[in-house]
Amino acid sequence: MLPIEKLQSIIQQAFRDLALPDHPAELYDPIRYTLELGGKRLRPFLALASCDMFGGNIGDAVHPAIAIELFHNFTLLHDDLMDQAPLRRGRETVYKKWNPTIAILAGDTMFALANREILKTNKEAVLSVSDLFNLTAIEVCEGQQLDMNFEQRNDVTIPEYIEMIRLKTAVLLAASLKIGAVIAGAPEESARAIYDFGISIGIGFQLMDDLLDVYGSEEKFGKKPGGDILAGKKTYLYLKALQLSDQLDRSRLVSVYGSGKLPADEKIGTVRSLFDRIHIEDITRTEIDAYWKNAVSIVHSLNLPESQVQPLLGYCARLMERDY
Amino acid sequence: MLPIEKLQSIIQQAFRDLALPDHPAELYDPIRYTLELGGKRLRPFLALASCDMFGGNIGDAVHPAIAIELFHNFTLLHDDLMDQAPLRRGRETVYKKWNPTIAILAGDTMFALANREILKTNKEAVLSVSDLFNLTAIEVCEGQQLDMNFEQRNDVTIPEYIEMIRLKTAVLLAASLKIGAVIAGAPEESARAIYDFGISIGIGFQLMDDLLDVYGSEEKFGKKPGGDILAGKKTYLYLKALQLSDQLDRSRLVSVYGSGKLPADEKIGTVRSLFDRIHIEDITRTEIDAYWKNAVSIVHSLNLPESQVQPLLGYCARLMERDY
Repeated sequence: MLPIEKLQSIIQQAFRDLALPDHPAELYDPIRYTLELGGKRLRPFLALASCDMFGGNIGDAVHPAIAIELFHNFTLLHDDLMDQAPLRRGRETVYKKWNPTIAILAGDTMFALANREILKTNKEAVLSVSDLFNLTAIEVCEGQQLDMNFEQRNDVTIPEYIEMIRLKTAVLLAASLKIGAVIAGAPEESARAIYDFGISIGIGFQLMDDLLDVYGSEEKFGKKPGGDILAGKKTYLYLKALQLSDQLDRSRLVSVYGSGKLPADEKIGTVRSLFDRIHIEDITRTEIDAYWKNAVSIVHSLNLPESQVQPLLGYCARLMERDY
Repeated sequence: MLPIEKLQSIIQQAFRDLALPDHPAELYDPIRYTLELGGKRLRPFLALASCDMFGGNIGDAVHPAIAIELFHNFTLLHDDLMDQAPLRRGRETVYKKWNPTIAILAGDTMFALANREILKTNKEAVLSVSDLFNLTAIEVCEGQQLDMNFEQRNDVTIPEYIEMIRLKTAVLLAASLKIGAVIAGAPEESARAIYDFGISIGIGFQLMDDLLDVYGSEEKFGKKPGGDILAGKKTYLYLKALQLSDQLDRSRLVSVYGSGKLPADEKIGTVRSLFDRIHIEDITRTEIDAYWKNAVSIVHSLNLPESQVQPLLGYCARLMERDY
C-alpha cells in the first residue's frame, strides 16, 4: 500500500499536469485561481486510497480523482455565489473577485472539464464511473436545494437534516471511494460497502464541522467560532437543542437564534449557554462517534489485511480525531 | 428515410417519457417548466435526422438527442440569468419566476441529467459521443464568455464575432449532427463533414437572427424588431456597418448605437437609415447565402442519394428560407 504522503503527491502532480487553455482568460483565470486555492484534496485522496486498498492500479484512478475535485470546486463556485460568501480559504471568492456571471460560467466549464476527465477512466470502469459521478452530481444539487429550503423553514427535523447533509456532503465522499473501488475491480459488494463507509464518515465530518463551529478553538479550526450561530444556521446542534430543551428554553433559543439585532458576543454567548445546559457538545460527540464506529466496522467487514486498510482508515481517523 | 414529422414526434414522445423525480420540488419544478416551454427542438431533430441519414438506428440516438436538448435548456437558464432576461418564449424565465439561486442549481442539475442521458448511447459510440458532448459544452461556455467580453469592448472585429457565434451557437448544432453520424457508424470523414455542415448552418442561422432582429416583420419573427439596436448589441449588421461606413457615419453610428437616452423609435430609425445607406440587408443576405451554399455543398459531397439527405436538408432549408 502506498503511504498517505505518496498519494497526496500524486494528486498534486496531476493538478500541475492539468493543461487548461488560456483563452478566454476571463473564463480560465478564475478556474486556475480556484484550483490553486488548494484545500485538503480530500476527495481525490479517497478515490486513490480506495483504489489502492482494493489492489487497483493507482494510475487508472488519477483522472477520475481530478474530475471529482474539479466537480467539488465547481460546486463551491456556485455555492459561494448562492450563499453570497465573500471569502473561501481566506481569499476572495470568484464571484467577488470577478463577478457573478463569471462564477456561473467558470463553474459550468469546470463541470464539463470534470466530465472529460472522467472519460479518461480505464475502459472496463468508465461507464459505471461516469454514471455514478453524474448521479452523485444530481444528488449534491438536491442537497444544496434542501439546504436552501431549510433556511426558509422552522420545522426541519433531524432526519431531514441528516438526509440533507448526506446529499450535500456525504455522497460525494462516498462516490469518490466507490469510484476507486470500481476502478480497482473490487467485487460489487465491497464497492457498495466502501460507499456506505463514505456516507458514514461524510455525515460524521459534517456533524464535526457543526460542532467545531461552536466549540472549536480559533487556532485549530482556522476561523472564529460562532459563525453558524450568528448566521442562524439550522445545524445539528441547534436542531438537537430544540428537541431536548424544555419549552421555555426552546422559545428563548428560537428567538435568540433568529435575531439579527443582538450584539455578536451576546448572541453567541446566550446560545452556547442554552446548548451547554443540555450538554449538546457531549451529545454531538456521541453521535459523531456512532458514525465513526459504523464506518470502522464497515471497513473491518471487508476482511482486508490491516496494512491494506491503514492509509485510508488512518487518514480518516486523523480527520475525525479518532482512533480505530 | 423517416419524414420530418415522424422524427419530431419521436422527440416529443421521448420528452414525455423522461421521468424526472418530484423531490425537491424547488429543483425539479423549474426543470419541468423549462422543458415544457418547448421550442423547436432543433438540436434533437438534427441528431436524429443525421443518424437516419447515415443509415443508423434512430432508437440509438434518442437518449443523446434528449441530452443535447437538456444541455441547451440548461445554458438558457444560466444565460437568461446572466443577461437578466425576464422573458423566454413569451413566459417568465426561471430566475424571474423563482429566483437566481434556483436558476443556477436547476441548470447544474440539468447538465448532470444530460450527461446521464448521454451515457445511454449505444456501447460502440458512447465514449466518443460523451467526449464530444462535453468538449462542446466547454466551447459553448467559451462562446458565452466571449459574448460577455464583447459587451465591454469597442474594437470587436468581424472574424472575432464569427468565432464567438461559432462557439456560442454553431458548435452545438454541429455536435448534434456529428453525434447522430457517430451513432450511425458513419465513416469518420463523413462525421467530420456533417459537423462542418452544422458549423455553416449554425453561423448562417445566427446571422439570419441578427438580420431579422432589424428587418424582420413582427408577425413572422414573433417579436418587435429593433431589440438588438435598443440593447446596443454588437451584431454582424452593426460590425459590418462600422466597417463599411465613411468616417462621419461611423461616428454617428457609434454614438447613436451606444446611447441610452434616445427615444426607442428614434434610435431604431436612425440606426436603420445608417444601415440602409450601405445596403446592410443585402450584404448580410449575401453572407448568409454563402454559409448556406457552403453547407449544401458539404452535404452533396457526401454522395448520398437525394432521398436520404432530403429530411435534414429540407428542414434546414425551411429554417433558412432557402432552396437547395
